[in-house]
Amino acid sequence: MSKFELYLDVQYYETDQMGIVHHSNYIRYFESGRMAMLKEVGLPMHKIEEAGVMMPITAVDCKYRIPARLGDRLRVVTFMNEMPRARLTVHTEIYNQDDQLLSSGSVTMGFIDASSRRPIRCPQMILDIFKEHINN
Amino acid sequence: MSKFELYLDVQYYETDQMGIVHHSNYIRYFESGRMAMLKEVGLPMHKIEEAGVMMPITAVDCKYRIPARLGDRLRVVTFMNEMPRARLTVHTEIYNQDDQLLSSGSVTMGFIDASSRRPIRCPQMILDIFKEHINN
Amino acid sequence: MSKFELYLDVQYYETDQMGIVHHSNYIRYFESGRMAMLKEVGLPMHKIEEAGVMMPITAVDCKYRIPARLGDRLRVVTFMNEMPRARLTVHTEIYNQDDQLLSSGSVTMGFIDASSRRPIRCPQMILDIFKEHINN
Amino acid sequence: MSKFELYLDVQYYETDQMGIVHHSNYIRYFESGRMAMLKEVGLPMHKIEEAGVMMPITAVDCKYRIPARLGDRLRVVTFMNEMPRARLTVHTEIYNQDDQLLSSGSVTMGFIDASSRRPIRCPQMILDIFKEHINN
Repeated sequence: MSKFELYLDVQYYETDQMGIVHHSNYIRYFESGRMAMLKEVGLPMHKIEEAGVMMPITAVDCKYRIPARLGDRLRVVTFMNEMPRARLTVHTEIYNQDDQLLSSGSVTMGFIDASSRRPIRCPQMILDIFKEHINN
Repeated sequence: MSKFELYLDVQYYETDQMGIVHHSNYIRYFESGRMAMLKEVGLPMHKIEEAGVMMPITAVDCKYRIPARLGDRLRVVTFMNEMPRARLTVHTEIYNQDDQLLSSGSVTMGFIDASSRRPIRCPQMILDIFKEHINN
Repeated sequence: MSKFELYLDVQYYETDQMGIVHHSNYIRYFESGRMAMLKEVGLPMHKIEEAGVMMPITAVDCKYRIPARLGDRLRVVTFMNEMPRARLTVHTEIYNQDDQLLSSGSVTMGFIDASSRRPIRCPQMILDIFKEHINN
Repeated sequence: MSKFELYLDVQYYETDQMGIVHHSNYIRYFESGRMAMLKEVGLPMHKIEEAGVMMPITAVDCKYRIPARLGDRLRVVTFMNEMPRARLTVHTEIYNQDDQLLSSGSVTMGFIDASSRRPIRCPQMILDIFKEHINN
């Protein structure tokens, strides 16, 4: 069972006129967390794409509990609960510097062959690497 | 029962290196649709905020069916199925120029008193205006 | 001499915690104006890219006079003063609903052959179309 | 003479369909660099704003030499050449992991009293801290 952590400082351009991080940016934090996870397991996204695989998003959900603010240092925790098949679901929890849970959610992706633009099952190179990191 | 439509052209800066609109932008399209709806019913967001009410997001979900691409003209359809109480849920469907459903989802908001920063029930001025536009 | 106008409503997600549109978004407004200009002259950006030409940005400058705010309806005025050669420079002025100049600036682009990824001079199809729209 | 360095990984959501970082994001990288500089000298932006000072942008310029791509780790180098008076100009250079200069530019800000919303000269608390970091 592996959890991956990425630390991010809230950026000024991420705030909105409510004085908090705009809610759309958490979807981007989720992505930053996934990308850092992929990099850490040795399969950064640009390598996956160079291998001719694209991973378009098919669903996103996010719950917002406490707003992030400028000055916050976020801990983005990323993990998977199941091995990918036709789809891959990645979960993310975002905490602040006081270890408060600000937000949690999940993102589901498919796999596309970049040349044919057709859906494929999760490529073996991804399965091989994920095997040891699935929570169970 | 009212549905509100907003037309948006896909912007170059919204695309990503998959050659499609980045998934986080649909959350922003949802917001653009809500804001256009509020404006159309005579209660634009900046008036709500001037009245001391903030509407932070508490949950978002989005399903992605067909990717939007540069050159697409999007029809963003926004509607509500229930009167707001402590929370307001707004639904959105996004279609392209060929009337294909690209994406659908919902966003839930709370209400905050801007001076006390405490949660409140949906203000009467919003209820009064929404009454005639709820789907049922 | 042609000037092209695009109207844009300020979006909530474009504001920052100063309560104004974040300065980076004007660079995106400039792009929206250029794209609308290209579409209006019959050469939308996705057609240019389908013809194998990319137009990467080489320089941007922007002056900010009055901040745009939520509720503002922006008039984005786009024009060119010279025919493109190796480079194309496009100028933009942004006005609000009271016809106040909020911001002005320019963006310079090169031309790249998409297959070789090498710089080229402005393609003839672009020159032919721009000829009648250059200010002089 | 002080130069401040911030390391940033290119994010997927920052790429566009040319397969490179969208040019508007460099303006945001500049901001991230400034914010990191302010934090490092002990005066993070949220402290400046808590002291009632806002620093709206009055001008931006950016030259783009080599595009940043997914997988790049950017070194954002931030420095000042002059003490601020009514205006503060901050310079930024962005390098990749191979120490190639990708982009350079500058951003000029004013100072606003947050309560009166009127321009002021650079507050003493900022001058005191910047004194030792100006390049000359």
